[in-house]
Amino acid sequence: MKARVHITLKNGVLDPQGKAVHNALKSLGFEGVDDVRQGKYIELQLEDSLPEDQAEEKVKQMCEKLLANTVIENFDIEIA
Amino acid sequence: MKARVHITLKNGVLDPQGKAVHNALKSLGFEGVDDVRQGKYIELQLEDSLPEDQAEEKVKQMCEKLLANTVIENFDIEIA
Repeated sequence: MKARVHITLKNGVLDPQGKAVHNALKSLGFEGVDDVRQGKYIELQLEDSLPEDQAEEKVKQMCEKLLANTVIENFDIEIA
Repeated sequence: MKARVHITLKNGVLDPQGKAVHNALKSLGFEGVDDVRQGKYIELQLEDSLPEDQAEEKVKQMCEKLLANTVIENFDIEIA
């Protein structure tokens, strides 16, 4: 079973990495981009024996304890 | 219009960042995780005047030229 986790900065939190990418795109001549936000994407391969609802709860705990900084970041979990 | 880009390491490419996360999860007592792979997630806010098919082509060029290292990384584009 796979869990896909997206970790993104909350609205209003400055994103210097996204800004740098935005500026780099501009200087390469790419027009038409209004904003860039960069986040993290984590794929967890979970043991198949784990029931799906427990898996989601477990990954939520992992996000809260380690993967995301919930003061400035949101996370989103998909179990597949 | 929004473009969501996932950039992940190709299979077989070592992922020390993912390994570090995996070890950290283990030492926090999270069992049942077989593997962790970490990638990047980039959200691009594009001008709405751009037609959708052109947008996808443009973001593909951005990935090839700047966002992804296509020697070791795959990218995946979603236009929404």
